[in-house]
Amino acid sequence: MSASRFPLLDRRFLLTSLATLPILSASSRFASAQAPSDPLPSWKDGATKTSILNFVARVTTQGGPDFVAADKRIATFDNDGTLWVEQPMYVQLAFILDRVKAMAPMHPEWKTKQPFAAVLDNDFKALAASGEKGLVELVAVTHAGMTTAEFEKISSDWLATTRDHRFKRPYTELVYQPMLELLAYLRASGFKTFIASGGGIEFMRPWTERIYGVPPEQVIGSSIKTRFEMKDGAPTLFRLPDINFIDDKAGKPVGINEHIGRRPIAAFGNSDGDLEMLQWATLGASGARFGLIVHHTDEVREYAYDRLSHFGKLDAALDAAKVNNWTVVDMKKDWKRIFAFD
Amino acid sequence: MSASRFPLLDRRFLLTSLATLPILSASSRFASAQAPSDPLPSWKDGATKTSILNFVARVTTQGGPDFVAADKRIATFDNDGTLWVEQPMYVQLAFILDRVKAMAPMHPEWKTKQPFAAVLDNDFKALAASGEKGLVELVAVTHAGMTTAEFEKISSDWLATTRDHRFKRPYTELVYQPMLELLAYLRASGFKTFIASGGGIEFMRPWTERIYGVPPEQVIGSSIKTRFEMKDGAPTLFRLPDINFIDDKAGKPVGINEHIGRRPIAAFGNSDGDLEMLQWATLGASGARFGLIVHHTDEVREYAYDRLSHFGKLDAALDAAKVNNWTVVDMKKDWKRIFAFD
Repeated sequence: MSASRFPLLDRRFLLTSLATLPILSASSRFASAQAPSDPLPSWKDGATKTSILNFVARVTTQGGPDFVAADKRIATFDNDGTLWVEQPMYVQLAFILDRVKAMAPMHPEWKTKQPFAAVLDNDFKALAASGEKGLVELVAVTHAGMTTAEFEKISSDWLATTRDHRFKRPYTELVYQPMLELLAYLRASGFKTFIASGGGIEFMRPWTERIYGVPPEQVIGSSIKTRFEMKDGAPTLFRLPDINFIDDKAGKPVGINEHIGRRPIAAFGNSDGDLEMLQWATLGASGARFGLIVHHTDEVREYAYDRLSHFGKLDAALDAAKVNNWTVVDMKKDWKRIFAFD
Repeated sequence: MSASRFPLLDRRFLLTSLATLPILSASSRFASAQAPSDPLPSWKDGATKTSILNFVARVTTQGGPDFVAADKRIATFDNDGTLWVEQPMYVQLAFILDRVKAMAPMHPEWKTKQPFAAVLDNDFKALAASGEKGLVELVAVTHAGMTTAEFEKISSDWLATTRDHRFKRPYTELVYQPMLELLAYLRASGFKTFIASGGGIEFMRPWTERIYGVPPEQVIGSSIKTRFEMKDGAPTLFRLPDINFIDDKAGKPVGINEHIGRRPIAAFGNSDGDLEMLQWATLGASGARFGLIVHHTDEVREYAYDRLSHFGKLDAALDAAKVNNWTVVDMKKDWKRIFAFD
């Protein structure tokens, strides 16, 4: 496996510090009054919002030149950095690190064995030095060696009890309110909304329906292999320490095709990991298509990063947005609020 | 890859003859009058039909002890032998053989090279002798080396123009009318219906919505690997000659979990290839569950086969049905008609 096939490492670790960042005041707790019919109340009026409304109007206007039958209104969303926070590191990486620490008492040998010692010592330089091989080992011990039901419980319990260092809230509250409105608006307009994330498919599925309104069968992600076993008369799927699929970069169109079997007409991302998904959704196809990139420009209410970021690097995709006429969301200017609690 | 991972070969070729079988009179062209509310008019009254109606009533009765919320009403259906004919060979195998013959003029070397020579000579003994390696070669030349869009056109054109030897009809008319009614009845009862087939996922998707009402994103099947490529500014997925996933036997729960992310509460099959899917749907889980096996018992209107069949062998799963209280459909006794044209 080449390094580029492993998104966590390929985007590299931004692990120089786990120190909490200062909590700054959120500015737009009280959104201004909206016309009752506004489906996107957290989006400021302007070109960005208009581009969304216009696209939806075009594909849903029966008899219009760009009308798309409801069953073909497929929209795919990246997760990390598009629907929820991905700084100071991917949530799932925080889970991996916490799991290693939680499991360490049963593994005294980890105190002197890399990459585990690096995690236990918070030595992120050594962790990064362990490379892709190290990360695969960490995924194997934290994500495999148990049934799918057991993993669901472990990851769900962790998500329910863990708080983000900066915002002091569960990660499931660190979802972008404007994007929740967009998901709901698209569904109300007859779209089927999917997630296509580099994150683990089984890490996301337990909560995507509750948080995003996206049921498990509409979640696409990276996965490890599983093996079916009858155990005491009950069927189980046992999680194996082997990578099955990496749903990132050029893998996203592959995963989307495998799961959906037709091309989306709209795609939403925030990083170079989403470039090929946006190409797959919007280029070389007839009819109205829509691509959107969330540009993180608000260090006060959230984070500001793009071309130089380790997590969620946005470089080639930002250039491609200009060429391909994709909408670029300026979070600072386009969103009245970022989180529901703003 | 072990032989058991390759369903076409594992069930072996029943290729001793492609001679058409005699067309015998179909008996139930005129179904008896039904109460207008009967959702399953092609099913005869009796224990089989009652078991279906009772299960659906139990899981849809709000406030009842077995009520299941609509989003958890997941039903999975095998395709070959469960929704359409699989004799005298899987439809997709007929496609492979026809494709080799159609491509042969461009490959003069095939005249003396196995397994191609065996196909061109209709020498099914030699074809079977070429083993799994031979079959993989045939899949590679007929299913790979082109884009997904090109494969869709080739396979769809073939399906539209090819007639079954016995029934003199397109394969898409050789679907079981009672099962079409069952699919529609489940959907009308809030179920989401999926196909989980050992057949090729991209072979099925172009027509499952039109024929079964199952959209592409609810089709699970075997697949080969694909690679994303930008070609003259347009994105394509190029089909590679490498097996990605075999959705058969113990692979079915794996594929179902990967695509759906939760366990079905009902599963429908007809062969040992469906055993693990039925176990996954019905065993070791709380609440009402339903398993059904279509037993091919009608050699007059369709075919009669089970424990000794090469395609669609039904042996262990027939025994398991008794132990696990799965419904077994006796096609001859339980179905008033088999095809819409009966």
